[in-house]
Amino acid sequence: MFVEKIKTEGLAHLSYVIGDGGEAAVVDPRRDCELYVELAHARGCRIAHVFETHRNEDLVSGAPILAAMTGAEVHHGPNPERPVVYADTVREGRRFTFGKLELAVLETPGHTDDSLSFALYDADFGSEPVGVFTGDALFIGDVGRTDFYPDRAAEVAGLLFDSLRKLEALGDQAILYPAHGAGSVCGDAMADREFSTIGYERRNNPMFALQDRDAFVEKKLNEHHYQPPYFRLMERLNMEGGEAVRRVLSPAPRGAGALAGHEGATLLDVRGVTAFLGAHLPGSLAIPADMLSAFAGWLLDPEERLLLVADDGAQATAAARSLAQIGYDRVEGFLDTALPAWAAGARPFGALPALDVEEVARRVADPPEGWSLLDVRGVTEVEASPIPGARHLYLGELPQRLGELDPERSYTTMCASGARATVAASVLARAGFSGVSVFLGSAGAWQAAGHPTADKAQ
Amino acid sequence: MFVEKIKTEGLAHLSYVIGDGGEAAVVDPRRDCELYVELAHARGCRIAHVFETHRNEDLVSGAPILAAMTGAEVHHGPNPERPVVYADTVREGRRFTFGKLELAVLETPGHTDDSLSFALYDADFGSEPVGVFTGDALFIGDVGRTDFYPDRAAEVAGLLFDSLRKLEALGDQAILYPAHGAGSVCGDAMADREFSTIGYERRNNPMFALQDRDAFVEKKLNEHHYQPPYFRLMERLNMEGGEAVRRVLSPAPRGAGALAGHEGATLLDVRGVTAFLGAHLPGSLAIPADMLSAFAGWLLDPEERLLLVADDGAQATAAARSLAQIGYDRVEGFLDTALPAWAAGARPFGALPALDVEEVARRVADPPEGWSLLDVRGVTEVEASPIPGARHLYLGELPQRLGELDPERSYTTMCASGARATVAASVLARAGFSGVSVFLGSAGAWQAAGHPTADKAQ
Amino acid sequence: MFVEKIKTEGLAHLSYVIGDGGEAAVVDPRRDCELYVELAHARGCRIAHVFETHRNEDLVSGAPILAAMTGAEVHHGPNPERPVVYADTVREGRRFTFGKLELAVLETPGHTDDSLSFALYDADFGSEPVGVFTGDALFIGDVGRTDFYPDRAAEVAGLLFDSLRKLEALGDQAILYPAHGAGSVCGDAMADREFSTIGYERRNNPMFALQDRDAFVEKKLNEHHYQPPYFRLMERLNMEGGEAVRRVLSPAPRGAGALAGHEGATLLDVRGVTAFLGAHLPGSLAIPADMLSAFAGWLLDPEERLLLVADDGAQATAAARSLAQIGYDRVEGFLDTALPAWAAGARPFGALPALDVEEVARRVADPPEGWSLLDVRGVTEVEASPIPGARHLYLGELPQRLGELDPERSYTTMCASGARATVAASVLARAGFSGVSVFLGSAGAWQAAGHPTADKAQ
Amino acid sequence: MFVEKIKTEGLAHLSYVIGDGGEAAVVDPRRDCELYVELAHARGCRIAHVFETHRNEDLVSGAPILAAMTGAEVHHGPNPERPVVYADTVREGRRFTFGKLELAVLETPGHTDDSLSFALYDADFGSEPVGVFTGDALFIGDVGRTDFYPDRAAEVAGLLFDSLRKLEALGDQAILYPAHGAGSVCGDAMADREFSTIGYERRNNPMFALQDRDAFVEKKLNEHHYQPPYFRLMERLNMEGGEAVRRVLSPAPRGAGALAGHEGATLLDVRGVTAFLGAHLPGSLAIPADMLSAFAGWLLDPEERLLLVADDGAQATAAARSLAQIGYDRVEGFLDTALPAWAAGARPFGALPALDVEEVARRVADPPEGWSLLDVRGVTEVEASPIPGARHLYLGELPQRLGELDPERSYTTMCASGARATVAASVLARAGFSGVSVFLGSAGAWQAAGHPTADKAQ
Repeated sequence: MFVEKIKTEGLAHLSYVIGDGGEAAVVDPRRDCELYVELAHARGCRIAHVFETHRNEDLVSGAPILAAMTGAEVHHGPNPERPVVYADTVREGRRFTFGKLELAVLETPGHTDDSLSFALYDADFGSEPVGVFTGDALFIGDVGRTDFYPDRAAEVAGLLFDSLRKLEALGDQAILYPAHGAGSVCGDAMADREFSTIGYERRNNPMFALQDRDAFVEKKLNEHHYQPPYFRLMERLNMEGGEAVRRVLSPAPRGAGALAGHEGATLLDVRGVTAFLGAHLPGSLAIPADMLSAFAGWLLDPEERLLLVADDGAQATAAARSLAQIGYDRVEGFLDTALPAWAAGARPFGALPALDVEEVARRVADPPEGWSLLDVRGVTEVEASPIPGARHLYLGELPQRLGELDPERSYTTMCASGARATVAASVLARAGFSGVSVFLGSAGAWQAAGHPTADKAQ
Repeated sequence: MFVEKIKTEGLAHLSYVIGDGGEAAVVDPRRDCELYVELAHARGCRIAHVFETHRNEDLVSGAPILAAMTGAEVHHGPNPERPVVYADTVREGRRFTFGKLELAVLETPGHTDDSLSFALYDADFGSEPVGVFTGDALFIGDVGRTDFYPDRAAEVAGLLFDSLRKLEALGDQAILYPAHGAGSVCGDAMADREFSTIGYERRNNPMFALQDRDAFVEKKLNEHHYQPPYFRLMERLNMEGGEAVRRVLSPAPRGAGALAGHEGATLLDVRGVTAFLGAHLPGSLAIPADMLSAFAGWLLDPEERLLLVADDGAQATAAARSLAQIGYDRVEGFLDTALPAWAAGARPFGALPALDVEEVARRVADPPEGWSLLDVRGVTEVEASPIPGARHLYLGELPQRLGELDPERSYTTMCASGARATVAASVLARAGFSGVSVFLGSAGAWQAAGHPTADKAQ
Repeated sequence: MFVEKIKTEGLAHLSYVIGDGGEAAVVDPRRDCELYVELAHARGCRIAHVFETHRNEDLVSGAPILAAMTGAEVHHGPNPERPVVYADTVREGRRFTFGKLELAVLETPGHTDDSLSFALYDADFGSEPVGVFTGDALFIGDVGRTDFYPDRAAEVAGLLFDSLRKLEALGDQAILYPAHGAGSVCGDAMADREFSTIGYERRNNPMFALQDRDAFVEKKLNEHHYQPPYFRLMERLNMEGGEAVRRVLSPAPRGAGALAGHEGATLLDVRGVTAFLGAHLPGSLAIPADMLSAFAGWLLDPEERLLLVADDGAQATAAARSLAQIGYDRVEGFLDTALPAWAAGARPFGALPALDVEEVARRVADPPEGWSLLDVRGVTEVEASPIPGARHLYLGELPQRLGELDPERSYTTMCASGARATVAASVLARAGFSGVSVFLGSAGAWQAAGHPTADKAQ
Repeated sequence: MFVEKIKTEGLAHLSYVIGDGGEAAVVDPRRDCELYVELAHARGCRIAHVFETHRNEDLVSGAPILAAMTGAEVHHGPNPERPVVYADTVREGRRFTFGKLELAVLETPGHTDDSLSFALYDADFGSEPVGVFTGDALFIGDVGRTDFYPDRAAEVAGLLFDSLRKLEALGDQAILYPAHGAGSVCGDAMADREFSTIGYERRNNPMFALQDRDAFVEKKLNEHHYQPPYFRLMERLNMEGGEAVRRVLSPAPRGAGALAGHEGATLLDVRGVTAFLGAHLPGSLAIPADMLSAFAGWLLDPEERLLLVADDGAQATAAARSLAQIGYDRVEGFLDTALPAWAAGARPFGALPALDVEEVARRVADPPEGWSLLDVRGVTEVEASPIPGARHLYLGELPQRLGELDPERSYTTMCASGARATVAASVLARAGFSGVSVFLGSAGAWQAAGHPTADKAQ
């Protein structure tokens, strides 16, 4: 009897293969789902069931794809108005058995109306659950966000509170298997720890430990979460069923001379931050490969044709995989020409200066004419450590709100470290802003250097 | 903050890499230990510490090898008379910190005098342990064996009882990380489940749940465990420090014509049971690759030169790895000639008939002249389901006790299914017994077919 | 500028990825064709072209699948009456360029009417070809078979002779890249050597060196080749275009208890020969995994549902891959229960005795009543070394010609070593023949032991 | 019978595993040599012999290491004064047999006195060689360099000419297996093509085709080659025998906070060129991972302790491997902190501006006060396309000749594309030069943009 956790970096998404006696089930599979089959087979099990804890907003579900691949049945929570077309609806109390392993369905709404948890039992042993799959209801160190039904905000926060009580009642001994770990957009305060139990969370997870329903609801209502536009696409795909990823994810290498064949495609530079600062193709958008899960859904349209700029094929493939996991399939290839070779053809290139904390501090103290510091962090971060004089505009919203900026000014972008700031700088540069620079180190350096924060964010 | 479990099949041995903040520790590394370094590095951590829960009897410890490879310190429990030369001795209450992760030493003697457990804390969260490494003190579904100090049998069983109480006191929320899983020789009754908590075991593990010290000791004294002779070698190596495995474990392929160059080596057939029954090299010993961890230490001498007979290089390599993990390094190659090709050179071969349950039942009911049924299971198994008329002689002890058998008789060997019976049959055939056959299906088939067991084992 | 050879074991099929300057081409891709894309991408090239040397009879072409995956164009030789629907037709003299690499089309009919060769040039260097892809026209040590147009046998043999002269004219310096290596059914006398040149073959390949057209044709007319029935399916698929292999080739593990769910499926035992002899499921057909490419197309129907019996998942997957490469897709799973465990459920099993050469020689010298020796080798092999008293019936034809055998007799099957003999024995046993045994060592042992061959085959 | 080529990128080194009949040989193994054993075993062969074509100058030989691992014998050419201690000396005409494969020794001095070639025969076929291992005597498109015995320059060039005639006499049909491919420091003019034959080279390799001994010698005397200082170390190690690489090559990740523990180590930045330009640790030396084989031996001392700066563990491991292959073992770890996170600790960083061709052309046309363009290409390249006004100083010699530069001037470094220029710029910056910049695109851009070259190099 096994539970194997599959962690998808970037999305910080956790899925699980569980099995016993030759039968396996997958909980919350991602879109590129061959790995679950291989894993189950290696464990001597056929995949017979797929369980979804809820309709995911942040990734394309692999449930219908995996079902087509294996013949497994898909089980989903109640969604009376718009049922998931590829799944049957299961309700509280339904039990599924694989060998000696049993899963019992718990309805745990709040994060979404269709949220389920699955308590895990070992039929050979006691009657208490030995573990529980909590989806986006309960995380390690945090609980799920409840901002998806703005009209019913207090109601669903309350529903989540009730669901958490149901989970608490499973007992301290139950191991926790959530759908996301630290780094996910589905929760801000998750622990960096990858393992926990109901008993441990009951004592140490601030929101789970909070036993006052009204206080809980109040806190949830005061949270701020962003909803990237691609969430809409995910909802549709995860109701109707998405397609399998392409069979070969590695993008085709393209030489500098072949770019003409990709006219109209967006040049997406997935190299590291400093590589982009050092030199990049004019007009390219910087989203480093490990930031694609978080920002492609804000800054790119799913229908946009993409040509990657990458250090090598491995990085291009990782980028294509991250994009595919959120439904972005139109990668036409990657530029297999390093920047020196690119430039050796007398082709133009751009660069962005990196300012250090002392330089930025000087400018903040005595702002040069026409210069602004642009903070692209999330509002929660900015409120926690506002930088004096910085203007705030969240990176995800930058493309839509560019009109609020003045193309005549020169902007230095900043975030927590300089990574998102570089992405933002590339957005500005593409839009024709000149004099763009990046505050490398950003808020982290500001604080480490002992500079004071502002009284409040602007 | 991560805990990664590495399971070594065959030995059913569990080791762990844990880490946070760039520093990792390994608990109970096996001999072929490069994988821990790769795993820690992939997690962004340097291995700084190695912890041993006790001096292992059943495998060569990788602790000194890993320390030489990485510069890590090795920590071991108290062994006043014969301290482990490659480790420092740590005592109750000592704490180690890696990033936000803390390990606290618990002395939990009983299985061995030097047994330690390590409680795992997350410094960012509560004061209770989130997990505990229990070594061979507490398993999932069982507790450690206490037969290693025959003179002090009741005393050490009592020590284990006390140690278990110390573990129980850590709280229901603590996740259990033992040193062995189901299939290990270190415990008979382990659950097949790979995950548990103190809380779950407290309720469902019969020996852990037993709160009466005297009853506990009584039960432990009535257990029967075998101690393969290679345990002595393991004890010495794990006190003095073993050598690293050879850099390339895959044995060199050898053609039939090259066997002359391996004169004096034991032909060790690691193919599956039925392949050996069908045809095998005369004089070869059958120990299928997945049974080597359990039986090589009984049937082979560590100084014995070995030439493997294998289906292919992958199987030969798996066999060499299993052998190396218990200190058997003298594999000179493997016969890379399938039996048909072997026979096509007009070379001799042997075969063993497989008897089915109906044939054996006929013989048991009306024993042919000069025929015996030889049961090679462990005594505990035999007592649970004795087969009428079968003579019992445990497989591990067969080579030493061959003199008790009559070479004039024809033996049909049996066990639970026919696997160990085939090993036993090969031992008899090598020793010159003729008329040897194997009861395929064995006790399992006997019971499934509804034949009655004997009143008691013979 | 690179040429990479991909060898498909079993089929002894050779395909090639060639490339330069960011563009690659594949010659004769097999059906499971992701590997070509990965390989080309790793070389910094996009696959832009696929070339077929002829319409393959012995495997499913991956050309249309690879084209769909990459957008590459497929090029095929002239087939006026039934053109390949997924390819354009190219003729002598057409040249293709990738970077500095050029391919020139040569029409080299004989093996098939549409056979092409492709001479390979380096535009930066001399005007002679540096290599040539010869398809099934010229092999290392042999030339292609010419038995596919029985009505035009002499004509096509003559065409091949002329084609060989065209290849010879390319010059001694040209490296040879054929479509098959030793072990293929497409030629009997191929060298075991994996590399050669036109110059080396011109001197050392007996048929290529033969400069007398009539003598060449005469020799070709006297060759005997078998055409397995699946060749018809391959021809159709390779004209119309086959489908991609399933995304996960590893068959699902099935326990003994799940067999009932596969009622009507053929039990196909892909374990090694001796494992089948030792014990097997009643009614199962033995075709060891490495013999599937050669015999599945004779002994199985492509529409037959298959349940594999395998040692492990890796072997089952290898078997499923071999089957898929020749268009056999209906693998429903594999029995993940070793024979001892199978038998432990009191389930029935079969076994086949292996006779050694001395026993068979005794029987041949003085045949027991009702006993026959059945030689299942190919006619060419039998003619080279006939065994006295053996009846000949080629393994591939055995299922169709079972009626010629007498179910009342007991047969000992033989071949060159005992491998095909075991397959044949399983065919007989499935058909209800009793008293079947296998001559392990077979003709090889017969000769190695110094027994005389017969005057002629029977 | 197989020949497998193993290409070591960076060094452009080619080694070979050849085998037949269960016995394999390795030609010119590199230091990290486990892969040869795995490859031979996968081919069903034991490694019985190791052949060296000559004492390598540019990498650590794996011959003695591989011999220790497998028991193989090592064979080397005659070196009367300083014989290789781990090998026996073989002379012209000696033959070695593996199965049907035969290797015949040819003495082919010129590149070195001990240079051997090995002609490859198939004993089953003709008497001509089917291939030849030519070491550094004959490459594809070029011949070996002859600058290692400055006192005997004309003599050894003549010896090479004679050796080439011996190779030519093997016949057009022989496939060429040299010890290096394009990109090696062992020859300037190698073809980018990876395959050839004696016949093809005879016609198309300019130096091999040259049949006038005096003209040949004259041309060789006019070649210019650099000898990096580490060649001396290689010669010593390859005479006495080097040690095996460490068992785990992946360097340990180190956080920014751990750098204090590596005081005195050189910070070696192995990231890509533009990443270094964008931001880097102060005082770090830039040698991108794929340039280490070429430049570590010039710019680093083998005894220097190294701490890598890398994008990730994979890149750090690749760098450590390249360093190990040339005997640089003192890698203590790699900085596992991206530059933004580094800077977020308010730690200092550097950056280098990249100038484009128009900016450089402006400066060349009208040089700013105190500015110089520094060309770090090899002399042969500079002579082929001198840039007006540029000062030449070869990158490899830069550390030793820094005193020739003026620290008061600001230098823009250039090479062919900007890669070596970045390495050079890092050398200058470490030495305290300020105002350093890099001409990205360099000579390639200069020519592509149509700017004129100078009359002659300066």
